[in-house]
Amino acid sequence: MKIFAGVDLGGTNLRVGIVDVETGSVLASRTAPTLAREGPEAVMGRMAELIRAATSDTPAKAGRVEAVGIGVPGVLDLKQGLVLFLPNLPTTWPDVPLAATISAQVGLPVFLLNDVRAITLGEWKFGAGRGVDTMACFAVGTGIGGGLVINGKLHLGIGGTAGELGHQTIDINGPVCGCGNRGCLEVFASGPAIAAMGIKAVIQGLTTSIGKLVDYDLNKITPELICKAARQGDAVAKDIYDQAGTYLGVGVANVLVSVGPRKVVIAGGVAAAGDLLLEPVRRTIRERVTIMPVEKVEVVPAELDLNAGVLGSALWAAQNVGYTD
Amino acid sequence: MKIFAGVDLGGTNLRVGIVDVETGSVLASRTAPTLAREGPEAVMGRMAELIRAATSDTPAKAGRVEAVGIGVPGVLDLKQGLVLFLPNLPTTWPDVPLAATISAQVGLPVFLLNDVRAITLGEWKFGAGRGVDTMACFAVGTGIGGGLVINGKLHLGIGGTAGELGHQTIDINGPVCGCGNRGCLEVFASGPAIAAMGIKAVIQGLTTSIGKLVDYDLNKITPELICKAARQGDAVAKDIYDQAGTYLGVGVANVLVSVGPRKVVIAGGVAAAGDLLLEPVRRTIRERVTIMPVEKVEVVPAELDLNAGVLGSALWAAQNVGYTD
Repeated sequence: MKIFAGVDLGGTNLRVGIVDVETGSVLASRTAPTLAREGPEAVMGRMAELIRAATSDTPAKAGRVEAVGIGVPGVLDLKQGLVLFLPNLPTTWPDVPLAATISAQVGLPVFLLNDVRAITLGEWKFGAGRGVDTMACFAVGTGIGGGLVINGKLHLGIGGTAGELGHQTIDINGPVCGCGNRGCLEVFASGPAIAAMGIKAVIQGLTTSIGKLVDYDLNKITPELICKAARQGDAVAKDIYDQAGTYLGVGVANVLVSVGPRKVVIAGGVAAAGDLLLEPVRRTIRERVTIMPVEKVEVVPAELDLNAGVLGSALWAAQNVGYTD
Repeated sequence: MKIFAGVDLGGTNLRVGIVDVETGSVLASRTAPTLAREGPEAVMGRMAELIRAATSDTPAKAGRVEAVGIGVPGVLDLKQGLVLFLPNLPTTWPDVPLAATISAQVGLPVFLLNDVRAITLGEWKFGAGRGVDTMACFAVGTGIGGGLVINGKLHLGIGGTAGELGHQTIDINGPVCGCGNRGCLEVFASGPAIAAMGIKAVIQGLTTSIGKLVDYDLNKITPELICKAARQGDAVAKDIYDQAGTYLGVGVANVLVSVGPRKVVIAGGVAAAGDLLLEPVRRTIRERVTIMPVEKVEVVPAELDLNAGVLGSALWAAQNVGYTD
């Protein structure tokens, strides 16, 4: 058995798994709140502690953990193992030597990877993308992240920055995005974009149950709530997912004509809406893509749920020590 | 010396070169009008004749031509060597067995490739993309074609259809494109789009020399003419290239965030405008791309001119017989 630790550094939770990278089974796992407001040192201390705890939970017969992979929601220097920028955490971690710090604390080689690239790798090897040579992943949540596997290899681009599929411009004159661009896919189809469409429907006074479901407290309107309304038959709520899925479909279409993946995996919290989101994606690519055989492309939900990042990060560590492709 | 024939099947001209694929030198070449309206049989006959003629022009000491590559402006079945659809020719060549027909006539293995993918391969190996591992090519002419080299390999996608960078949606509500989609990059930045901007400026009565340069015959307004006006200092003409370059920059930005090439090569007739087109591309990617190190990406004009397709097709043949990567 070849075992590696995978870490998912989330805005809310830290998640560590000890993974048999041959089978993708998680032998032991630990989670704890990230408490990111306490700053990098505290978070890194907690992370090292979780790695040690999960390691000692691992059955002795599994062997020794060989290296650690960490999925990080931000911009990284992969070679130096630095965090450059964490856009969604209360402290932004400029130039934090995450790999070296954890390595010193746990006594193992540590490798960083963008969190959605880790999910991409996890889904490709152990989840919805098993067996395809070229795959795209869109992770739709607070933002829209992405990743590409090309010819059986995670595609990194310059310093691991390739695969930011949520920051394609799909509307050249569209609204400003958090990244500084205009009209990014993320502006139209992320969780907050869906919530905002729900809020707008309520304050416009459309005939919808969305308002009533939250007692007209706009703060409580979430993508999950709108999904619930849609599943109860609310036409406005359904239309909101239809719009988001149409936008997402345009982003998927762009990846189809440029990169031509066999499979497109939709991950992230918003993907829990299932076909409410995925059917308009599929319809949109059929409508918009005529110059490649779109019928050969599958658009599928992610399969690994919360473990995707842990599995992908562990696999990344294994790839970096030369154990596996 | 390892020599291969490269063929560029253009809407106007057929071009054949006998290429030393080690150095990228063209040892002999022949061109003739395509006369596509005469139909596939006549064109294929002429093509075979040109291949034989160029072969007999080749110095005997260079050795034997080993295989033929053909760059085709359309949709292909690479494995079967079929042309499925030629959108820009008067006859559309449905299911024409181009590879088998030429192979029977010249007695050599024949391999097909989309024409812009051939240009991409040629520019990567012998032209503006030499030495980079990952490169994108946009060929801006009557349409906008494209191609990707990823990790030192032409990226094919499903059946060679990947790399259609001109058919990314950059304006979800934009005008209809010839491909059936709306708001494709091609709609905004191709040669006809540039010509149409010039025509519009004239019929709107803007203060520009464009009209006078063609004696107010709108039929004569071309991208080349507008380029000429811009170089003579015409502000409206400059602005037209600025707009086209801005649109093209959005398409380039999308490829940067998704695929992350080190170099972007701009080929095709419209690229002859040089920095009139390329400077707004560079400005646009600096403005729009914040999530990857855009300063590490070079946007450069193609170097090989009319030979790119011939060189790329010859290299494609060499790769297919296993001679070279």
